[in-house]
Amino acid sequence: MNKDLLTDFEAQWVPQINTYLDENMQTVSNQAQLTAAMRYSVLAGGKRLRPILSLAVLTVFGCEITPANLRASVALELMHTYSLIHDDLPAMDNDNLRRGQPTSHVKFGEDLAILAGDALQPLAFQWLADSDLPADQVAAMTLGLAQAAGPTGMVAGQVADVKGAGHQLPLAALQQLHREKTGALIHYAVLSGLIQAQVPTNQRAAYLEFADAFGLAFQIYDDILDVTSTPAQLGKQTHKDAGEHKNTYPGLLGLDGANAALTAAVTHAQQALAQAAGPDNTLLAAFLTYFTN
Amino acid sequence: MNKDLLTDFEAQWVPQINTYLDENMQTVSNQAQLTAAMRYSVLAGGKRLRPILSLAVLTVFGCEITPANLRASVALELMHTYSLIHDDLPAMDNDNLRRGQPTSHVKFGEDLAILAGDALQPLAFQWLADSDLPADQVAAMTLGLAQAAGPTGMVAGQVADVKGAGHQLPLAALQQLHREKTGALIHYAVLSGLIQAQVPTNQRAAYLEFADAFGLAFQIYDDILDVTSTPAQLGKQTHKDAGEHKNTYPGLLGLDGANAALTAAVTHAQQALAQAAGPDNTLLAAFLTYFTN
Repeated sequence: MNKDLLTDFEAQWVPQINTYLDENMQTVSNQAQLTAAMRYSVLAGGKRLRPILSLAVLTVFGCEITPANLRASVALELMHTYSLIHDDLPAMDNDNLRRGQPTSHVKFGEDLAILAGDALQPLAFQWLADSDLPADQVAAMTLGLAQAAGPTGMVAGQVADVKGAGHQLPLAALQQLHREKTGALIHYAVLSGLIQAQVPTNQRAAYLEFADAFGLAFQIYDDILDVTSTPAQLGKQTHKDAGEHKNTYPGLLGLDGANAALTAAVTHAQQALAQAAGPDNTLLAAFLTYFTN
Repeated sequence: MNKDLLTDFEAQWVPQINTYLDENMQTVSNQAQLTAAMRYSVLAGGKRLRPILSLAVLTVFGCEITPANLRASVALELMHTYSLIHDDLPAMDNDNLRRGQPTSHVKFGEDLAILAGDALQPLAFQWLADSDLPADQVAAMTLGLAQAAGPTGMVAGQVADVKGAGHQLPLAALQQLHREKTGALIHYAVLSGLIQAQVPTNQRAAYLEFADAFGLAFQIYDDILDVTSTPAQLGKQTHKDAGEHKNTYPGLLGLDGANAALTAAVTHAQQALAQAAGPDNTLLAAFLTYFTN
């Protein structure tokens, strides 16, 4: 696992993703307040992990990244940002701080925060559909993104998270919560790269298994950071999970148990990649250095 | 304009649409509360106008309605229902009654109401994408539905509605509000029928002009009913628009002026249909009897 590979890939693409979002959301609505609210959350920074992962899959398969590929990949960030805005709402996690800045409803009011999220979600589908990618790719990605975002994906996980707070879920239910809430969109990020790279269906399984193990590791790591970091380090309130009796890996397994689960998920991801027939997968393996400081 | 044509078409399809929604949303999520909240609003009744209109376009062009066509048309109702749930939220219109029943957030809590809406929106795209329609139709419908639902469509109209309350918009701005908030999805309903019927692009304009005039008439009529009806007649609070200083046609033009605008919109829709080359459009013309009691 070569951390420099990931760092270099991020250095190449994160600025392009940020510029793309900025330029393509200048006049995303004729309603100035809606445009402002959508831009505020989308341009608040972040690792751009999901588009980066999608672009990495394309790169691993030797594809040159076209403007259409970039648009379809950046669409992932629109969907991710909508989910953050709605998760932060008073009726949900009631968070005031996100990436070191006031959350959307604090800044723009609850009505505009709900509506900014409501508008980002279809905009993600729009960017797939008007990307100039072939219709069969658009149709396959629409299905994948809809399944990731819908009532068996992100929203199911958020329901489990909000409604499960206060009573301890067993490990299997916690895994499912994470798989839906965080894992589904990471799964789709890899899937969308495979679709655009025209990887045959029978060669996709190992990459999707990598995606799922990576997504689980990502969420366990996030749970651990909530316990071990300061607000200044994370740009948001920490120790919130325990205070709200949220279901987390450290809460269920302790910090040592959570670290062991993280190691197991990373190992699983490595093993899945090793099974992946095809090209040189070192760039994807480098994503696992995300969890090693 | 033959009202019986519309009545017969509704009698044929509304029960099938309701059955389809019931059967296909039995286990729409593994989260029972989410499934319950989604089903509650989707199965609360209603005219099913948008799917019916889409099916009518297919019928006018002589298409037999396949299960795939039905799925893609019923998807419109998922998108419409999400918008109703979110419009009713405390941070928006704060409505307690919809179709004679408690609104979603009254029944299930604000968190589940937001999440039910958040899940219905991608489910609409999912039903397009997994409908077994050809990929080029799925891609074109995904684009059309995303544009209708997004920041230049329904959400822009809702922002104008929420933020415009309390100060009178000029007529052009009110028309735009209605075109976005209500008209965009009705436009897409007709467009989706044209796409599925494989109507060539250069023969679509007259039908889409009909859609836009019909959509405007529909919203003006809704504004008028809010003034002239009782809660028992509508199944929701009435006279709310004036109490909240909402921008409406009767508010801006008076009841006589609003009725004149309705007549003008209906006439415009009839004229557009008369320009529509192609088949016998009497079924579509029958939709205009909706505004004549």
